[in-house]
Amino acid sequence: MYLNEPGLYYEIHGTGEPVIILNGIMMSTASWKEHIQRWEKKFQIITYDTRDQGKSSRITDKPYTIDVHVDDLKKLIDHLELKKVNLMGVSYGAQIAELFVLKFPNLVDKMVLSNATDHVDNYLKSIGQAWKVAATLYDGEKFFDISLPYIYSRTFYNSNYSWLMNRREIFKKTLTKDWFDGFIRLASSNETFDIRNELKYIKATTLFISGEEDIITPKNHIIEMHNKVKNSLLVNVEETGHALFFEKFDEFCMLVEGFFS
Amino acid sequence: MYLNEPGLYYEIHGTGEPVIILNGIMMSTASWKEHIQRWEKKFQIITYDTRDQGKSSRITDKPYTIDVHVDDLKKLIDHLELKKVNLMGVSYGAQIAELFVLKFPNLVDKMVLSNATDHVDNYLKSIGQAWKVAATLYDGEKFFDISLPYIYSRTFYNSNYSWLMNRREIFKKTLTKDWFDGFIRLASSNETFDIRNELKYIKATTLFISGEEDIITPKNHIIEMHNKVKNSLLVNVEETGHALFFEKFDEFCMLVEGFFS
Amino acid sequence: MYLNEPGLYYEIHGTGEPVIILNGIMMSTASWKEHIQRWEKKFQIITYDTRDQGKSSRITDKPYTIDVHVDDLKKLIDHLELKKVNLMGVSYGAQIAELFVLKFPNLVDKMVLSNATDHVDNYLKSIGQAWKVAATLYDGEKFFDISLPYIYSRTFYNSNYSWLMNRREIFKKTLTKDWFDGFIRLASSNETFDIRNELKYIKATTLFISGEEDIITPKNHIIEMHNKVKNSLLVNVEETGHALFFEKFDEFCMLVEGFFS
Amino acid sequence: MYLNEPGLYYEIHGTGEPVIILNGIMMSTASWKEHIQRWEKKFQIITYDTRDQGKSSRITDKPYTIDVHVDDLKKLIDHLELKKVNLMGVSYGAQIAELFVLKFPNLVDKMVLSNATDHVDNYLKSIGQAWKVAATLYDGEKFFDISLPYIYSRTFYNSNYSWLMNRREIFKKTLTKDWFDGFIRLASSNETFDIRNELKYIKATTLFISGEEDIITPKNHIIEMHNKVKNSLLVNVEETGHALFFEKFDEFCMLVEGFFS
Repeated sequence: MYLNEPGLYYEIHGTGEPVIILNGIMMSTASWKEHIQRWEKKFQIITYDTRDQGKSSRITDKPYTIDVHVDDLKKLIDHLELKKVNLMGVSYGAQIAELFVLKFPNLVDKMVLSNATDHVDNYLKSIGQAWKVAATLYDGEKFFDISLPYIYSRTFYNSNYSWLMNRREIFKKTLTKDWFDGFIRLASSNETFDIRNELKYIKATTLFISGEEDIITPKNHIIEMHNKVKNSLLVNVEETGHALFFEKFDEFCMLVEGFFS
Repeated sequence: MYLNEPGLYYEIHGTGEPVIILNGIMMSTASWKEHIQRWEKKFQIITYDTRDQGKSSRITDKPYTIDVHVDDLKKLIDHLELKKVNLMGVSYGAQIAELFVLKFPNLVDKMVLSNATDHVDNYLKSIGQAWKVAATLYDGEKFFDISLPYIYSRTFYNSNYSWLMNRREIFKKTLTKDWFDGFIRLASSNETFDIRNELKYIKATTLFISGEEDIITPKNHIIEMHNKVKNSLLVNVEETGHALFFEKFDEFCMLVEGFFS
Repeated sequence: MYLNEPGLYYEIHGTGEPVIILNGIMMSTASWKEHIQRWEKKFQIITYDTRDQGKSSRITDKPYTIDVHVDDLKKLIDHLELKKVNLMGVSYGAQIAELFVLKFPNLVDKMVLSNATDHVDNYLKSIGQAWKVAATLYDGEKFFDISLPYIYSRTFYNSNYSWLMNRREIFKKTLTKDWFDGFIRLASSNETFDIRNELKYIKATTLFISGEEDIITPKNHIIEMHNKVKNSLLVNVEETGHALFFEKFDEFCMLVEGFFS
Repeated sequence: MYLNEPGLYYEIHGTGEPVIILNGIMMSTASWKEHIQRWEKKFQIITYDTRDQGKSSRITDKPYTIDVHVDDLKKLIDHLELKKVNLMGVSYGAQIAELFVLKFPNLVDKMVLSNATDHVDNYLKSIGQAWKVAATLYDGEKFFDISLPYIYSRTFYNSNYSWLMNRREIFKKTLTKDWFDGFIRLASSNETFDIRNELKYIKATTLFISGEEDIITPKNHIIEMHNKVKNSLLVNVEETGHALFFEKFDEFCMLVEGFFS
């Protein structure tokens, strides 16, 4: 379904407590197909593509910052006439969730922040730069080769290499110029993201999920975040990188189910 | 309630899927009071004291090994006329759960093994020896002083010192010669526990929970166990030691709820 | 040799740059026999027993704090007519070294702090309490059983169990009431040790050595210390606990040799 | 100086025990300028560029494997009329050292293997692929952006960002098509490198150096290697990635000095 203004594609699955899913930067509503099969029996799952993602509209008129998604999310919640929601954000989506709860604290009940950060440091900015250089090649295979080892863990590479090589083929076939351009804009939007000083104002009960081998948003930093957010829990998943939601599907689903139930 | 033969004290809370709780060595049914308040709304919680624990009978006629509890548990399940159960074992209780599922695989549906091991190595045997030396002093305060830093994490000690000192008082007042003697027998019963070669036969869906600062059953060893049990998940909790079930009450409850729901 | 006042036993081995060795709390000059065989070819090694240790005099008139050893060390340096020394302190000895360099910064050239801390937190105080309870039993075997698993790593226990059991025999035969009483006084002397705010004033080039499995003075805390001492290096040794100087003899000797040469 | 056949550029600094330095894949003799200033006072330092590196000749006639450097190194040692040498290899250079000591065990006295591996797993192969994709762009800045976050640690990026950006400029100015082509051939030469089964035959006294944040050759794997090489030591350096020799210059120099002295 579409929310015409501002052109957001969204889906609603199941009934019950509403949980809005916020995608990571390379993801879309399609990334959650298998999770939804489990979760829709327990909650009302609302997935959507941020602008410049998936089936939502593009933002080509001027550069923007990640904050733009906060107001879009607010419009979606208003459109759905939800009084209070739960948020589940992964990586870039966790950053949106953090900004949203700080701006609209009364709209958020509980929140999962998986593979999250509270600021883009020079290292993360540099990985973003690698990704943007990769995207400007407009070649799915090269993009895969350059970007993916930052995202999936060594453990996953060594156990799922043929799946990954198949995935590389899919990247080649499906990533279009339009996709790469949207990705580049998204990857540029959070370079100055920094809510370190605001983190302490988050009051929503929050579950942090970290991945032991996550290079992008490492565990030690997430422990610091957890210690700043009063009503927060933290659980770490072993033998996984930044793509924890996928690499450790069972653990991830169980955590989200346990936290929201 | 009591199962007269072999003199097991047990409690039943709530309705639904039966989950049998297996205590750690220093614990009893009373240790689960707060957990039960959460869990009884979701499952049928069955707690019980193993023999030589809490309100169950003592085994004073001859030395025994931890296997003795496996048959006791079988009798309890038969007595309750349960066809299939879920098990949730902590430390020593996790060892009982492992032995039980290996002997009666068809009786176990799902299983949580928290702060578990598959064998007592020389280091663990030596910690057991420290505890036994401590127990033979028959002095709750000295027992507390000698034994507890192995169990609770540095993080917990530094955040909850007055609670611990209060706990020390309770040890002084409540630990009787009968308790110490039972403890010594229990701590002697698993010195040769070693199921490393059998672990691969466990078919029950299993959740391993490890604690980042656990000295007694360290994370790295639990990762190895997880990799040997096919249908298993593993989640690690940060900033906690061996008393994870208590130190990280919220995380622990959430994990158990997510796994069994 | 003895420095009559205040009754310090010391030894001098080799020639060259003077390196004064500061013992851990359960150690004495005798603990360094094998290290000296390597080091005396390269440096002038000065070992000594603090008061209440080994062959030095006892302090039985009144309670004292660890600072008492600072002035003793100053007297020893003056007696030996050394203008500038290098210090190598292990655990309790590292605490003495830290206090010394803060009081007499101009007397210290370079400094190794192995398995060090800058304050005794509640957890460390509690381990100290366990040790004192153990010592008051005046029984070498029980003291060994209670205290040693805090000191040697799991890896060491599992690889050197018969050596440890032999060591237990030696504890039984050699630890006297006099030794235990001295130990109890030493273990009481640093309960309020806290130089966290002064650490930044240390100017001496300093090598921190941490042990990956050290329970008493954990690596993460030593990294923090390293980041506060400007001219410092940090190296971590894997698969060892607090008794790093012994468990990892080769690595330890190499580090000290590399740093002082 | 040049060894005409096979066209190896080498340098000799200082006198004493000979230590041959084996470069990492992106390095050359020029990378060791500052280390040599320290080491030449203690040892005879021999640096050289492997073929396809720095000032040595190129191998353009046919594809080759990393073994080609083993025979080149043998020729260099023969040319210098050395009976026995010490080796110090970093990353790709450590792989050459491992192959050399297995082929010519009698020629090697002691050996430092820093940031080493004993096989190229799928993850490492994939990072190599990212680097090769980057190199084929023949653009120093893009190569820097894509490759460097794998090599330098987050800690280094966040403390030395302007140095890195300056370095990026130097990459832009100095990396030529010839350099990139040589790099691509080198990066292709070790894709099937695997000496896991031979590691146990290494008899030379060996020092392994690992970096806590090394993504390319992670610590846990180096611990496994250390446990397979009988006469080996292992030391870990904190807050550094794969470029340990540079990121932690002081610690690295000290370790090499301590080990070889």
